[in-house]
Amino acid sequence: MSAPLDSIETPAFVVDEAIALRNIRAFQDHCDKVGLKLRPHIKTHKLIRFAKAQIRAGANGITCQKIGEAEVMADGGLDDILITYNIVGPLKLARLRALAGRVSALAVTADSEAVVAGLSQAFALAARPLRVLVECDTGGKRCGVQTPAEALALALRISTAPGLRFGGLMTYPAAGLAGTATAFLTAAREALVRAGLDCPEVTSGGSPDMWTSNTGRVLTEYRAGTYIYNDRSLVQRGVCTWDDCAGQVLATVVSTPAPDRAVIDAGSKVLSSDLLGLADHGHVLGHPELRITALSEEHGVLAVDPARPLAIGQRLRIVPNHVCVVSNLFDRIWLATEDGGLEQVAVDARGRVT
Amino acid sequence: MSAPLDSIETPAFVVDEAIALRNIRAFQDHCDKVGLKLRPHIKTHKLIRFAKAQIRAGANGITCQKIGEAEVMADGGLDDILITYNIVGPLKLARLRALAGRVSALAVTADSEAVVAGLSQAFALAARPLRVLVECDTGGKRCGVQTPAEALALALRISTAPGLRFGGLMTYPAAGLAGTATAFLTAAREALVRAGLDCPEVTSGGSPDMWTSNTGRVLTEYRAGTYIYNDRSLVQRGVCTWDDCAGQVLATVVSTPAPDRAVIDAGSKVLSSDLLGLADHGHVLGHPELRITALSEEHGVLAVDPARPLAIGQRLRIVPNHVCVVSNLFDRIWLATEDGGLEQVAVDARGRVT
Repeated sequence: MSAPLDSIETPAFVVDEAIALRNIRAFQDHCDKVGLKLRPHIKTHKLIRFAKAQIRAGANGITCQKIGEAEVMADGGLDDILITYNIVGPLKLARLRALAGRVSALAVTADSEAVVAGLSQAFALAARPLRVLVECDTGGKRCGVQTPAEALALALRISTAPGLRFGGLMTYPAAGLAGTATAFLTAAREALVRAGLDCPEVTSGGSPDMWTSNTGRVLTEYRAGTYIYNDRSLVQRGVCTWDDCAGQVLATVVSTPAPDRAVIDAGSKVLSSDLLGLADHGHVLGHPELRITALSEEHGVLAVDPARPLAIGQRLRIVPNHVCVVSNLFDRIWLATEDGGLEQVAVDARGRVT
Repeated sequence: MSAPLDSIETPAFVVDEAIALRNIRAFQDHCDKVGLKLRPHIKTHKLIRFAKAQIRAGANGITCQKIGEAEVMADGGLDDILITYNIVGPLKLARLRALAGRVSALAVTADSEAVVAGLSQAFALAARPLRVLVECDTGGKRCGVQTPAEALALALRISTAPGLRFGGLMTYPAAGLAGTATAFLTAAREALVRAGLDCPEVTSGGSPDMWTSNTGRVLTEYRAGTYIYNDRSLVQRGVCTWDDCAGQVLATVVSTPAPDRAVIDAGSKVLSSDLLGLADHGHVLGHPELRITALSEEHGVLAVDPARPLAIGQRLRIVPNHVCVVSNLFDRIWLATEDGGLEQVAVDARGRVT
């Protein structure tokens, strides 16, 4: 990234395509090596082009969190989609049914009888059954059944529900609480086997644990999203280096009101307020002395070393704390292409909140 | 808000038009009473329709933070616009010059000679001079000149710069640090008068201080944005009540994995991660026992009283911590109109980051 960047307006989100493709390749290689299928989460890039690049590299499908994202990806030709979400309510179930009719493989997750009942009602008369995986709470304390026994009970319910087919087990994050995920999933799968239920897939995920991921003798598939762009939270956790961060916010210094302070034109509307447990709001590449100490909507406040002042008009490249949410804040991003060009692309699945 | 809301998909952002119009009226009345002109900040609603409603109610113009927002508002017929931002760089200055040619009144702020030099270069040959106000840092520690003497020096520079006209003084937030704003602005204005410079406007702003705002014998104008919708941060500060909160997120319970926990389909992609100094991530109307304890992108985790369980499919109305950023996260919002209808409207100036 260099000269052509001077010609674009800030704040901008710039993705280095070569780094992104290298990140895709590297984690696909890891999964291939440890015997895990890879199903990338498209929430990070929200781009059909990168979803296709992930498939070309060897991924066996994609993960979405929202039907709206899956619809956009299906429009783009992606045809093997897992929606890791409880789909609830007649409007969403109707959309899910329509989506199932136009992709070759669709699956969702569920963690309760109520959700399964809704799915069954929507798919009872469908041409093909819907695959439903049981979400397991292995310590993440979000959604998910609480015990292996509950997982078995819900799997049995799915396997007998009209229009549905039991698709396996799903959890997030990979490690669970204090590494309890593997034990939970292993116990659940053993209970399924004892009950005579086939468990075709056991899927876990999360970029923080990507490099230590392995089957643990139970996982068949891994889901990761952030790894394509990487971000400050992953650098801080030792998962990648700054050189692996493909997604960067380009900002301009608009004020240097005091010797120890500068202000940039990137605030929470660009970097988001996500901290992910970190102090400050991003990393300014090439400026280890700078700290982004505060954000308001359109301003980022930097603590500056008075011995290394910034100039108004100077441009800075920032690795955000959490890159996935930044993709959602730009209608269009800039792609620094492998041939040295700069291409503006719409973020296909941005803003698909439903 | 009631029956028709059952027919829309969640998560949704719903604005009660009657409450919004009442909020507009109430603060306009306050400003009229204390002798302040009101220049609402459109960042909260980003809607041409509400900007026009604010003008109809008596506002003397609007405030924008970005040229992109101002362009959208100009397209919609708003023709008196203050952009409270340092406009930096040739691309932005060209857009500013074009914008000046199609509205009847345009002003910007500046806090440095570098910014003034750029503005002057862009407007030196313009048909009309650009009004430039000096931004004063009265304790907010963002942009702004640091002392009344600096304000005078920059005002003198503006007044002699080709293409520019000195427009007055601007600060944010209203109270400054420990109430120092009035003293700073008074001293700056007195210095201007002594130097023979006319100071047509002294403008301050911020919804938190709206009800205690008055001229303080120096202010001529007040800028406020959040007051049209209000939010949890303003309720917590005693500025308004829950009944005054026009902007609400409608969410659905999608999981009740444990007796003390429920999960809704509104996460940080909807409520944002903005805390504004508060604990938790929003207020669930009618459920004082609930706390929104954690957000991920598409999930909100609620701490639930086991004696008052929630049901999957149940809908909740949430007042967000910071409503301005929520407007930016939805392409379209729902307006609960005064006649009891429900109308979907595009958020005109959403996502205008440049």
